[in-house]
Amino acid sequence: MRQPSFFKRLVEAKAGGLGALSRAAQRNARHAISLCHGLMSERGEVSGARLAREALAAYQTLEPAACEAFFDLLVKEFSPDPEDVGRCADAYRDDPSQTNLILLQQAAEPPRQELFRRLNMAAGGTGVLVDMRRQLLQGLGQKPQWLGIEADLAHLLRSWFNRGFLTLQRIDWRSPALILEKLINYEAVHEIQGWRDLRRRLQADRRCYAFFHPALPEEPLIFIEVALTKGMSAKVQPLLDPDSPVLDPASADCAIFYSITNCQHALRGVSFGNFLIKQVAEDLGRELPRLKAFATLSPVPGFCSWLIATADAPRGAPVRAEIAAVLAKLDAPRWFEDNALSAELQRQLAPLCAHYLLYAKQDQEPRDPVARFHLVNGAQLIRLNWLGDTSAAGIRQSAGMMVNYVYRLADVERNHEAYARDRTVVASRRLELLARESLLAPANGDQA
Amino acid sequence: MRQPSFFKRLVEAKAGGLGALSRAAQRNARHAISLCHGLMSERGEVSGARLAREALAAYQTLEPAACEAFFDLLVKEFSPDPEDVGRCADAYRDDPSQTNLILLQQAAEPPRQELFRRLNMAAGGTGVLVDMRRQLLQGLGQKPQWLGIEADLAHLLRSWFNRGFLTLQRIDWRSPALILEKLINYEAVHEIQGWRDLRRRLQADRRCYAFFHPALPEEPLIFIEVALTKGMSAKVQPLLDPDSPVLDPASADCAIFYSITNCQHALRGVSFGNFLIKQVAEDLGRELPRLKAFATLSPVPGFCSWLIATADAPRGAPVRAEIAAVLAKLDAPRWFEDNALSAELQRQLAPLCAHYLLYAKQDQEPRDPVARFHLVNGAQLIRLNWLGDTSAAGIRQSAGMMVNYVYRLADVERNHEAYARDRTVVASRRLELLARESLLAPANGDQA
Amino acid sequence: MRQPSFFKRLVEAKAGGLGALSRAAQRNARHAISLCHGLMSERGEVSGARLAREALAAYQTLEPAACEAFFDLLVKEFSPDPEDVGRCADAYRDDPSQTNLILLQQAAEPPRQELFRRLNMAAGGTGVLVDMRRQLLQGLGQKPQWLGIEADLAHLLRSWFNRGFLTLQRIDWRSPALILEKLINYEAVHEIQGWRDLRRRLQADRRCYAFFHPALPEEPLIFIEVALTKGMSAKVQPLLDPDSPVLDPASADCAIFYSITNCQHALRGVSFGNFLIKQVAEDLGRELPRLKAFATLSPVPGFCSWLIATADAPRGAPVRAEIAAVLAKLDAPRWFEDNALSAELQRQLAPLCAHYLLYAKQDQEPRDPVARFHLVNGAQLIRLNWLGDTSAAGIRQSAGMMVNYVYRLADVERNHEAYARDRTVVASRRLELLARESLLAPANGDQA
Amino acid sequence: MRQPSFFKRLVEAKAGGLGALSRAAQRNARHAISLCHGLMSERGEVSGARLAREALAAYQTLEPAACEAFFDLLVKEFSPDPEDVGRCADAYRDDPSQTNLILLQQAAEPPRQELFRRLNMAAGGTGVLVDMRRQLLQGLGQKPQWLGIEADLAHLLRSWFNRGFLTLQRIDWRSPALILEKLINYEAVHEIQGWRDLRRRLQADRRCYAFFHPALPEEPLIFIEVALTKGMSAKVQPLLDPDSPVLDPASADCAIFYSITNCQHALRGVSFGNFLIKQVAEDLGRELPRLKAFATLSPVPGFCSWLIATADAPRGAPVRAEIAAVLAKLDAPRWFEDNALSAELQRQLAPLCAHYLLYAKQDQEPRDPVARFHLVNGAQLIRLNWLGDTSAAGIRQSAGMMVNYVYRLADVERNHEAYARDRTVVASRRLELLARESLLAPANGDQA
Ligand SMILES: [Mg+2]
Ligand SMILES: [Mg+2]
Repeated sequence: MRQPSFFKRLVEAKAGGLGALSRAAQRNARHAISLCHGLMSERGEVSGARLAREALAAYQTLEPAACEAFFDLLVKEFSPDPEDVGRCADAYRDDPSQTNLILLQQAAEPPRQELFRRLNMAAGGTGVLVDMRRQLLQGLGQKPQWLGIEADLAHLLRSWFNRGFLTLQRIDWRSPALILEKLINYEAVHEIQGWRDLRRRLQADRRCYAFFHPALPEEPLIFIEVALTKGMSAKVQPLLDPDSPVLDPASADCAIFYSITNCQHALRGVSFGNFLIKQVAEDLGRELPRLKAFATLSPVPGFCSWLIATADAPRGAPVRAEIAAVLAKLDAPRWFEDNALSAELQRQLAPLCAHYLLYAKQDQEPRDPVARFHLVNGAQLIRLNWLGDTSAAGIRQSAGMMVNYVYRLADVERNHEAYARDRTVVASRRLELLARESLLAPANGDQA
Repeated sequence: MRQPSFFKRLVEAKAGGLGALSRAAQRNARHAISLCHGLMSERGEVSGARLAREALAAYQTLEPAACEAFFDLLVKEFSPDPEDVGRCADAYRDDPSQTNLILLQQAAEPPRQELFRRLNMAAGGTGVLVDMRRQLLQGLGQKPQWLGIEADLAHLLRSWFNRGFLTLQRIDWRSPALILEKLINYEAVHEIQGWRDLRRRLQADRRCYAFFHPALPEEPLIFIEVALTKGMSAKVQPLLDPDSPVLDPASADCAIFYSITNCQHALRGVSFGNFLIKQVAEDLGRELPRLKAFATLSPVPGFCSWLIATADAPRGAPVRAEIAAVLAKLDAPRWFEDNALSAELQRQLAPLCAHYLLYAKQDQEPRDPVARFHLVNGAQLIRLNWLGDTSAAGIRQSAGMMVNYVYRLADVERNHEAYARDRTVVASRRLELLARESLLAPANGDQA
Repeated sequence: MRQPSFFKRLVEAKAGGLGALSRAAQRNARHAISLCHGLMSERGEVSGARLAREALAAYQTLEPAACEAFFDLLVKEFSPDPEDVGRCADAYRDDPSQTNLILLQQAAEPPRQELFRRLNMAAGGTGVLVDMRRQLLQGLGQKPQWLGIEADLAHLLRSWFNRGFLTLQRIDWRSPALILEKLINYEAVHEIQGWRDLRRRLQADRRCYAFFHPALPEEPLIFIEVALTKGMSAKVQPLLDPDSPVLDPASADCAIFYSITNCQHALRGVSFGNFLIKQVAEDLGRELPRLKAFATLSPVPGFCSWLIATADAPRGAPVRAEIAAVLAKLDAPRWFEDNALSAELQRQLAPLCAHYLLYAKQDQEPRDPVARFHLVNGAQLIRLNWLGDTSAAGIRQSAGMMVNYVYRLADVERNHEAYARDRTVVASRRLELLARESLLAPANGDQA
Repeated sequence: MRQPSFFKRLVEAKAGGLGALSRAAQRNARHAISLCHGLMSERGEVSGARLAREALAAYQTLEPAACEAFFDLLVKEFSPDPEDVGRCADAYRDDPSQTNLILLQQAAEPPRQELFRRLNMAAGGTGVLVDMRRQLLQGLGQKPQWLGIEADLAHLLRSWFNRGFLTLQRIDWRSPALILEKLINYEAVHEIQGWRDLRRRLQADRRCYAFFHPALPEEPLIFIEVALTKGMSAKVQPLLDPDSPVLDPASADCAIFYSITNCQHALRGVSFGNFLIKQVAEDLGRELPRLKAFATLSPVPGFCSWLIATADAPRGAPVRAEIAAVLAKLDAPRWFEDNALSAELQRQLAPLCAHYLLYAKQDQEPRDPVARFHLVNGAQLIRLNWLGDTSAAGIRQSAGMMVNYVYRLADVERNHEAYARDRTVVASRRLELLARESLLAPANGDQA
């Protein structure tokens, strides 16, 4: 997983010219592909591990242009034969026997899949294949023909990173520095400001858990950070303060999930978060029976951009003007330190944010990505917190507002089904009432 | 992996009658299948682990008749739709684009595979699926329609038990008794006579290695037993003697692989042995640089039954009669303790055994299964050992003869390729000369 | 700890004659002692580990006669100088300052102690020193002059094997065979009949715990075996039956300590058993809150020999005759299978045994060694079990009777103090009443 | 080990007045002491662990004044009885039998030692006792009467922290952050500037090893930092540079010990450093057979202060004046960046430093503490490095000079003996020649 990034290769390749593939690049790609063919041959059966090692090594040293050529050859030479598949499918259509099904299966599976499985036999192979998918995902925009390779890798990785093969590990100050350093690098929600900040996040009233795969024992796949608190946290800055006092965890009544980070973008589509939240909630509940609530303290990352779009939208002029006026007030530097201004904005923005969370859609799903994640997992949107996050990012994205989603294990499945059936946003009565006060509520003269 | 065996269920089911499936069995099978459908549905996404647990539990409590009905339903309700696959295959035949390929893949993969992947999310799921394949393999003779399910499980298990996910572990007297007990139970070549026998097999001049999968940490998949010796062993009884003196391993020049056992019949077709021998040879060579030879001391399990069949075959009467006469001598009880008789038999049987190993075929491959295994792995057949195994089984199978196959890491690949190309049996000159003395050698008047 | 036993050496030495110490033995002992002096010298400081290794090796190869000479030299050359100690003690008597105390300490500590500490620096040194004490203890009868060496080793071992340095480990079927084999060899109370018997003792409704020292990680120091039962066990054979059904431990209400074994006789005087019982009781109580009673099922090893001695004692003739009559009945082979005879004996022997446990003394302490152990630990003698142990040993030692001692954590300290103060045997009312029925009870005409 | 420092307690105690011990402090000290008496009593035998826990807890909560009173009571009530010891010493003087020796031992050992051993039974006891010695060492200046307690603790800790009980552990970036943080805090030679600096010190061409005791598994006792280099390093700044390139360790020919830190001042007098260097040299030599030299890159911490003292000393005026002139030049800020000035100073200071290392004494031993440490360990002083350390400390202590001491395992013992016998400073010829050029060399007109 340490090879130079695809983008870096791309940049370096610029000089050589992408159009006219250099002879060296062609030769190198062809060499790597021929090792792959060798691995698929008779010899592969007996010398699999060695051939896999050689083929992986050849692939890993490809410069970007050669790497593109390698992928193109994977499309050309490792896809199933259309005529062959056609014949097998005809046979199965005529006689849907299990024998015909097996023949069809063999014909329809791209030889690439077997190639990837054999490459995986080499030490470190899994990591290289994960990285290969990362590269493919990055390149797909330019090279839609790689879609099939990407799909094959996705298929295998989903199978290999099955929940049944993952281990949940608690991470604390006794964990290897090598792992902790990765948390610092990966944390995507509330950036970790060095080792002192991390240390506070691992003390007695904080918890951190991650999923690992046995083939990547030093690579957290996803991790979650939890604060054990008295009462449900409304503001994130106190939770992140490295100098905050440490609470006796036995006295906590609430577990706040304040950050969840997917570490491996190359494992997109292999969902872990859902399992992680639930298992952590179960484990914590067993360990600390006093815990009464499991809730998130979450950002509302899409609110401000939606509000700006709404202000520009072709709708009733008065509402647009009012929203534009509100937005203008947000231009005041550090407005949130001006109590009067802040109170005024709260009156206008909190209802708008409730409206956004409950009613703003994108392809029938909630427009807010964090809301989508927790709602599909079966959580309930329970509370909006004014000035919950006064960091630069918090102010910019959501005028500082945060929300709590509650995970009640007894309700999770019902909530999820309601959401899955008709995209119902399960929310508290309080939030629904708040949304009614919004400028955009129908009663307030707007027609959405 | 502890549920009652399939055969036991079958026996128990006899009373109830297999023909007319009882209503209770039908109901139970249907219940388990409906839990499987639930697991595949929307709810499966959010409550996967719980639903997987429930479906597995329902499956595990099925009585044999209900289990058969369950498998039949897996064929009927979890196979791909022939029309659907046909359409996708037509599209791909018309336009072999990667997009069409992906659609074809999705249509052609039996939904069972996704079901098995989801069942695997439950704790212990992998073990249950391995056992499910065991049951299917046992039932296939009666129920050929289960072939597709078996193929799907085989496909998944081959992918999951990829060499890249296995760990090689040395097993010694410090290993958990739980594991050691399994070696005693599983050993298939030279039965382990209790803990004292096992203990000797784990002392300083013996080695034992096994492959494990992280999801089955207490289940050896395959294990190999090695003796470190001075000179290449010709007889197995001294190696197995619990009272034999312990050699200083640093003084050994030969590593004798005297037993290799596949523990999980349900992983048939997932080849480990090849990897195991080679990695153990590499590791031992590094640890003990004085080792000069890596060889097996192997049985010739098919010799006697082949010889009997040959005596009955419609060929030149004189040869048949001579063979029958030789066979008759083997009826003498403990003939091998009669020196004169033994010497006489050696003159006749050793050349016949060399002939058998070099020339007796079955579908173009060597007729002896142990020979097939080592030759396809690239070993060379090097020596025949008269009275190498005087146990009851050794006398019965091969008139006490054993052979050494040598693994020279430098030659393994070339040997394998020669074998793979045209089934060449790579053997020592000595063995070839020995075969020429056989009754069946062309020069000796037989026309094979 | 693997050197030939002292007795073996003694036997081997017989030929050479113990009286006239051979020159070779003298030379070897002198060589080992001179290495010890080297280790104590300046060079010892910088090359300690190497010199310790050499001195230990020289000591370990001494034949028995040389070993005796070595110990004699340890007395002669590594004891404190009497004049020197005398002067320091005078000074301290005159002026009991801390400075004088320190000087006295240095003068009074035998140089052997520093020697042993330096020998301990070598890898494996601790094990050799433990074994050295074993040899000294065995030889003390013949060689009382070794008392001082033995006392020095005992002083150091007591300090090094302090409870604070020991770890309590649960032993189960996942433990290394190397450890389990030692349990089989060491078990002193109810012999373990091979691996099948051991396996049953480690199943879900049984527990085994041992103390280990970090310097001897593969040597259990003491271990205890526990059965989790419903109701307090009165008979030991059902507990030991390898075919007995396994109880769900969560349904148990009683933890029966049925065996406790000190493995290292060489650590005599370093008490562990007391700590072990209490910590195991605490740990089990936490893990299985349903457990209501912690009790032993213990032998009464001294009863029969006491009864025989009593029958011979110069006391009232009628009582002696009656006891002799009872004893005579015990000569009937397998008398305990004759219900009538058994009932008759129970009426006579049970009260006698209660009397024995409550009143038979040896130097003011209870005469029964097992009773001493549990009473000093603060347990209460609660019940006598007729035919609790019908093994040959049980019948021979106590006519098959066993007893339960109960450990009530709340009472342990008070019981211990009562015992320590005036050797009070804390027993149940039932046992006291039983003892009154004894032939030996004063009311029954005997004057003890 | 986390209780408030003794100094902190002292400061806090100021208000209460040290002279007149408050009643509360008296009461608390007396309470802790009475728990200690309880632990020594009969009850201690059966309830040792609990009583130890309580006594330790009482001790740990003592405020500074009460803690002093506690120590005073340890002197008064836990010292041996002078009359008793006197009698036993008289008896041993009269008859130096081993029995009399044992009685003397028992009388002479302060009861405190048994008390400390019993306190050690509580979880965490060892750490508290280590800390108790730290406090005693800090207080000794004011309270010489505590010398005996300190000696008793030293005696026990030396016995418990015997080399045979320690484990050597490699520390790298996979070690727990908890341990790594301690290295950052403890490092005494070249301060670690945070995690990035530490990370570089743990990369492939660096090594770090530490000794641990099983009772303090998270407390490094001493650690050493090693750089694997090509050629013997003369300057330390390049070694410490976090941005320096990482060398392939297989290509290194030299192991430079550039820092060794005793972490536990409370274990003063328990020597580890000697063992650590030698074992690390042996282990590295085995792992990397290309390593040809094991050497330190060491400071000369006492040089400048010695030079100043020398300039003030009553000796030949001309030399004094010259030295004073040299010293004056060192006042120029960043003089070492002025090439001409630096060269001039090198000509004068390097010979003076060689003289200092070879001839400057303090009680017959080399005056430089680092020289003492390595010379007693058997190293050879081999090279002086001008501007080896241009940090503020390096310039201040030794005008930037560093030296290499070489550890040749074959010579270590001989060097040590030469040093131990007559304080011979084993140095290279080059350094001896350099010293002759010094202003202070006899040939140069000075009479030392
Ligand atoms: Mg597949
Ligand atoms: Mg002592």
